[in-house]
Amino acid sequence: MSAPRADQRVRETLRNQRIELPSWAFGNSGTRFKVFAQPGVPRDPFEKIADAAQVQRYTGIAPLVSLHIPWDTVEDYGKLAEHAAALGVSIGVINSNTFQDDDYRLGSVCHPDPAVRRKAIEHLKDCLRIMAATGSDALKLWFADGINYPGQDDLTDRQRRLADALDEVYDALTGEQRILLEYKLFEPAFYATDVPDWGTAYAHTLRLGPKAKVVVDTGHHAPHTNIEFIVAFLIAQGKLGAFDFNSRFYADDDLMVGAADPFQLFRIMNEIVLADAVTPDSGIGFMLDQCHNIEPKIQAQIRSVLNVQEATAKALLVDRDALALAQREGDVLGANAILMDAYNTDVRPLLADLRVEMGLDPDPVAAYRRSGYLEKVIDERTGGVAAGWGA
Amino acid sequence: MSAPRADQRVRETLRNQRIELPSWAFGNSGTRFKVFAQPGVPRDPFEKIADAAQVQRYTGIAPLVSLHIPWDTVEDYGKLAEHAAALGVSIGVINSNTFQDDDYRLGSVCHPDPAVRRKAIEHLKDCLRIMAATGSDALKLWFADGINYPGQDDLTDRQRRLADALDEVYDALTGEQRILLEYKLFEPAFYATDVPDWGTAYAHTLRLGPKAKVVVDTGHHAPHTNIEFIVAFLIAQGKLGAFDFNSRFYADDDLMVGAADPFQLFRIMNEIVLADAVTPDSGIGFMLDQCHNIEPKIQAQIRSVLNVQEATAKALLVDRDALALAQREGDVLGANAILMDAYNTDVRPLLADLRVEMGLDPDPVAAYRRSGYLEKVIDERTGGVAAGWGA
Amino acid sequence: MSAPRADQRVRETLRNQRIELPSWAFGNSGTRFKVFAQPGVPRDPFEKIADAAQVQRYTGIAPLVSLHIPWDTVEDYGKLAEHAAALGVSIGVINSNTFQDDDYRLGSVCHPDPAVRRKAIEHLKDCLRIMAATGSDALKLWFADGINYPGQDDLTDRQRRLADALDEVYDALTGEQRILLEYKLFEPAFYATDVPDWGTAYAHTLRLGPKAKVVVDTGHHAPHTNIEFIVAFLIAQGKLGAFDFNSRFYADDDLMVGAADPFQLFRIMNEIVLADAVTPDSGIGFMLDQCHNIEPKIQAQIRSVLNVQEATAKALLVDRDALALAQREGDVLGANAILMDAYNTDVRPLLADLRVEMGLDPDPVAAYRRSGYLEKVIDERTGGVAAGWGA
Amino acid sequence: MSAPRADQRVRETLRNQRIELPSWAFGNSGTRFKVFAQPGVPRDPFEKIADAAQVQRYTGIAPLVSLHIPWDTVEDYGKLAEHAAALGVSIGVINSNTFQDDDYRLGSVCHPDPAVRRKAIEHLKDCLRIMAATGSDALKLWFADGINYPGQDDLTDRQRRLADALDEVYDALTGEQRILLEYKLFEPAFYATDVPDWGTAYAHTLRLGPKAKVVVDTGHHAPHTNIEFIVAFLIAQGKLGAFDFNSRFYADDDLMVGAADPFQLFRIMNEIVLADAVTPDSGIGFMLDQCHNIEPKIQAQIRSVLNVQEATAKALLVDRDALALAQREGDVLGANAILMDAYNTDVRPLLADLRVEMGLDPDPVAAYRRSGYLEKVIDERTGGVAAGWGA
Repeated sequence: MSAPRADQRVRETLRNQRIELPSWAFGNSGTRFKVFAQPGVPRDPFEKIADAAQVQRYTGIAPLVSLHIPWDTVEDYGKLAEHAAALGVSIGVINSNTFQDDDYRLGSVCHPDPAVRRKAIEHLKDCLRIMAATGSDALKLWFADGINYPGQDDLTDRQRRLADALDEVYDALTGEQRILLEYKLFEPAFYATDVPDWGTAYAHTLRLGPKAKVVVDTGHHAPHTNIEFIVAFLIAQGKLGAFDFNSRFYADDDLMVGAADPFQLFRIMNEIVLADAVTPDSGIGFMLDQCHNIEPKIQAQIRSVLNVQEATAKALLVDRDALALAQREGDVLGANAILMDAYNTDVRPLLADLRVEMGLDPDPVAAYRRSGYLEKVIDERTGGVAAGWGA
Repeated sequence: MSAPRADQRVRETLRNQRIELPSWAFGNSGTRFKVFAQPGVPRDPFEKIADAAQVQRYTGIAPLVSLHIPWDTVEDYGKLAEHAAALGVSIGVINSNTFQDDDYRLGSVCHPDPAVRRKAIEHLKDCLRIMAATGSDALKLWFADGINYPGQDDLTDRQRRLADALDEVYDALTGEQRILLEYKLFEPAFYATDVPDWGTAYAHTLRLGPKAKVVVDTGHHAPHTNIEFIVAFLIAQGKLGAFDFNSRFYADDDLMVGAADPFQLFRIMNEIVLADAVTPDSGIGFMLDQCHNIEPKIQAQIRSVLNVQEATAKALLVDRDALALAQREGDVLGANAILMDAYNTDVRPLLADLRVEMGLDPDPVAAYRRSGYLEKVIDERTGGVAAGWGA
Repeated sequence: MSAPRADQRVRETLRNQRIELPSWAFGNSGTRFKVFAQPGVPRDPFEKIADAAQVQRYTGIAPLVSLHIPWDTVEDYGKLAEHAAALGVSIGVINSNTFQDDDYRLGSVCHPDPAVRRKAIEHLKDCLRIMAATGSDALKLWFADGINYPGQDDLTDRQRRLADALDEVYDALTGEQRILLEYKLFEPAFYATDVPDWGTAYAHTLRLGPKAKVVVDTGHHAPHTNIEFIVAFLIAQGKLGAFDFNSRFYADDDLMVGAADPFQLFRIMNEIVLADAVTPDSGIGFMLDQCHNIEPKIQAQIRSVLNVQEATAKALLVDRDALALAQREGDVLGANAILMDAYNTDVRPLLADLRVEMGLDPDPVAAYRRSGYLEKVIDERTGGVAAGWGA
Repeated sequence: MSAPRADQRVRETLRNQRIELPSWAFGNSGTRFKVFAQPGVPRDPFEKIADAAQVQRYTGIAPLVSLHIPWDTVEDYGKLAEHAAALGVSIGVINSNTFQDDDYRLGSVCHPDPAVRRKAIEHLKDCLRIMAATGSDALKLWFADGINYPGQDDLTDRQRRLADALDEVYDALTGEQRILLEYKLFEPAFYATDVPDWGTAYAHTLRLGPKAKVVVDTGHHAPHTNIEFIVAFLIAQGKLGAFDFNSRFYADDDLMVGAADPFQLFRIMNEIVLADAVTPDSGIGFMLDQCHNIEPKIQAQIRSVLNVQEATAKALLVDRDALALAQREGDVLGANAILMDAYNTDVRPLLADLRVEMGLDPDPVAAYRRSGYLEKVIDERTGGVAAGWGA
């Protein structure tokens, strides 16, 4: 583990890791009870990208920004992409939104009314066009569709409508474009959600074909779900498309990734390392999807990137040969101890060192705080409407 | 069970049952993703009470309306009470709100800053004055207070601050005024909530004294919690103050009571019947607290009142002597069968009959739909701002 | 709904419904803390079948008995089948057991040691031979395999071993033989189970082919899982093989089906009715899998069969045309009310009437209790070892 | 944090920490599906204590052994205590057992039959006598009492019976004797447990008086329960009596403490440190209560003691002044980061160093494995019956 060669490989992998940031993490967010507005919050997609670039500036492994349409609708996407490039980042995944128009009260692509379904499908196709304009190659689909009361609609009919919509969007993919299908147990639907679990998302992406994969949002599971099992299974099936990282103590709390259960994050990254899938050539996206309701947003994004990085570093330090041997021998405690040895290692010195090698400050949070960026944008961003989930 | 005398007692109890309606159920509500506005929604507390009076008109057992301050703030509470009386209803419990001001980002009565705590306490005292003005005798306290991240604040200090605030409000109670303390597992706080469970609420109300009791919101528990056990325990301790009825499949979904698990509602009402606590002389309040995000609100409130009534009727039909005998004899299946016999009874004919006796339409939902009330208010309520959680 | 023709169809369907009984439900069972032995419990598979025949005698819709190998190992399976036939029942599904030998401490078909995997696979093939000898056409596979500690074994390797074992057994199927693959969230494995959810079982049965289907055990899910969604989805995919019915308030409690959440059972049967899959020609098995730890076993099985029958009858009474119309119109409360109208109907008179038509006692539990069967076997079954999970 | 003085205080506290071991952890255990016997397992209480002494030998902070009656019944308790003393350990808490006699099928102190309640109460009083004979001062009460089906028994009557039994035992306490009352959500009861949560245990101990306190078993909670909140609350109320440490991913899995969620264990120990309650003068017991179903038992106990020790060391390293300041200032991320800084520290070098100071091997697991103890007892312990939950 401490051998120089192993260490070089670990550093090389960490250097090439990429975490993608969601533009909406920089706008205001909250619960149904209250959105606490924060000072200095961006007022448009350009300012969101500027904030995201701060995260990249101090971490060096977060050069991608996901957009959310229509929250990030602009007139000229080419200009937005250039703006990003000038700040050292680029546009990542495009996220569709089929839950905030009044028409979507009873669903979008699963709505009983074909006119609403048509509207939703057209929005998804619009997103494909925005992908072309921004250079993005992946459309992330989260459907809030579902029903609140037993009997409200027919579960099987809704699956058929969903399948039809997905088929149409899949057929419209061009070039390298891909679909990433997300599942979620509940919220905003409270009785049945149309894509509630990985099994449903898996079955649909299997029918669609190789350009459709599954998104694992770490906050979207039933209590007690073993997420790393799902990760390992989907990788083995060639169907893991991306993560939406966040953490939770209860439901879809959308806290910072690694904040609620850092050991779980380590176990997830351990499966990623096992599958040699840390770096971008794996084709798997590692995105954050969080709500910083009460904490400052840029700093929280930096913290989240570091949390993923630390978990990855620990996973890379697992002594794989010793672990495989202990597993083969059925040495329950020995195998567990080898895994825990890596988890219990303090990787922060290694990462600080790596950052210096990469020309970064060894302590990204402190460097960001010292920079005065937040104070500056609080001063500058007066007037206009702060971005939130509505815009 | 079918003996005339028993039946008379059942009818007498059902006739005297009282379900209290929340004013906010008639305004718009939603999730953090979207509030779908509905046509005809009230624009002020007077209109909310008018809508609530419709529920009373067709059910005959819902003559009380809870207010929420500041959502229901008016200049002249006496006038509001008169308005209610004119419509055949009256003001019930006053609900405080210490979660929607910007100051409350990190809590209210548990906030680290004493100035914010002071502000929250003064709001609670204001509510006591509104109680005096409206004739309400109970203040329902739900604190959204809590923290999102481990370490964010000191759990024990927060309990001390909570205790101090409660003590001050308790000391300010006059006459028949009472405090009802609600607990909730999570949301909007996502790591630790300051009154997360019945044990915490119980301990505080015990310290406060006999004028403080616990509110059981049926949607505020951890998964697998046996709510009827808590109900039975609190009644035996003299500490059950009120219910906030709703139902859920997942978290605090706030669906119509009885919609997700009607058998659970029956088991809860069974404990109420066992304790002879159905009618108002028990001192226990039976309130609804629901969000009709996608369904029409007045009709949903009627449905909810009927659901509680049906569960109560079933619980009243349990053959208590036979049940006690089977329990004493350890006849597991026999005892369970006696309970289930009542649950499986269709009480709708009995209730339809009772309504006719009470001068009501036997089918409240149908009668309401026929009345054209909703169409009328949709026409009338143009202009102004529809009520929601913000106002 | 009350039209004579509809009623005839409902009765016809109910008359042809088939519930399969597990032989092990008649033996002693318990928790890890204690097995409370009951008097009169069978001492061998012949006596178990005799007890099961009692359930069929009084319900008329339970003529199948599942065996569990090796608990029901006999020298002459032909003789056992004849014994069953003589009592009016027949052998149903064969259940394998790869969790009770000392070799299986770390798993069976997923064990790190190929010798243990071989042993487990040979047991499964033995079960295929027993199927041939008993006339059973389905092998139900529940694997207790899993690990207790992170790192204990490689999740992906275990999936490969599982796939290899399933492939070999699938290839050994002859004639009409089928595989039914069960999933379970946890217990006895406490960190990761190798077939933990329907998605995993679905993926394996998909790879295997049309003779492999999924078993839904109603007690094997994470909290909050919407089971009827899974049922509807698997039916639509042609992959629902069978149910293991039971109910639970917490984990895999194995209480009587319908005891914990009768509304859930109704919703499940509603999906079955919607798919026109109640009767045996659907190819779906409806089995009980319960533990009567403290209640008398035969009576509990009768109760369970009745619970499924009552839920089915209610589901058959749903006004499908009205429901479809309300769903199409987006009438949330109307659609829900139509479903609830059927659920709230007391179907016991209809079923009592049906039983009389079928030449049965209208009250199966009372008739069984009056029969004196339990007292008789308590007298007769002296000496020998009462059957339990070990034998 | 690294200042020498702080470090001395940390070491002093860690040196005085005491973890109590359960005698039954050294015997065989399992699930309802299978008990996998392990070679070398003790055959009587003397051998269990010998095994426990090994854990103390290598960790230096585990000198107490809890007994379980009747599993650890011996003729001469004085001799057992001497045997323990000779091995460097002593008898700790006495655990009663009112769940393994056939009489307890429907409960013990809550049973509907007063004769069974009497038997259970007399057993508890016997335990008080055994405490006197062994020098133990605490009786730990876990009641498996509960019911499996709604209606099976009256929840409130059962509470009265429970209260009567507890009152009688409390009145029989002499000298320094104390009662520790444990709660558990479910298992073996599957509908309602008579002491299901901390609130119930708290209310009973409050009624009983100062010699009764609550036991927090970390595996006995509903999903999502914030255990450290309960710990902090009970400490503040003077009602935390002891822990039963273990960990779980699902239900009462009884895995090694710290194995499933090491961050949770840290948060719990953080509350202990905050309350200055690590060492024995706090009056709080820190016991293990685990089942080593598939892993070797002595080594697993050593691992568990180390896990508690490591979590404690991390909690002791939290920079309290900085944390309090950040909390006061409402610096959400800063406060969380200070806590996480301690959690992310690798305390193993500090603890290895401490062990050397204490005259111990720096690596307890390795030292134990090298010792050949397990091989020795496997050789020696032939004949007799291996200890398990039945004996």
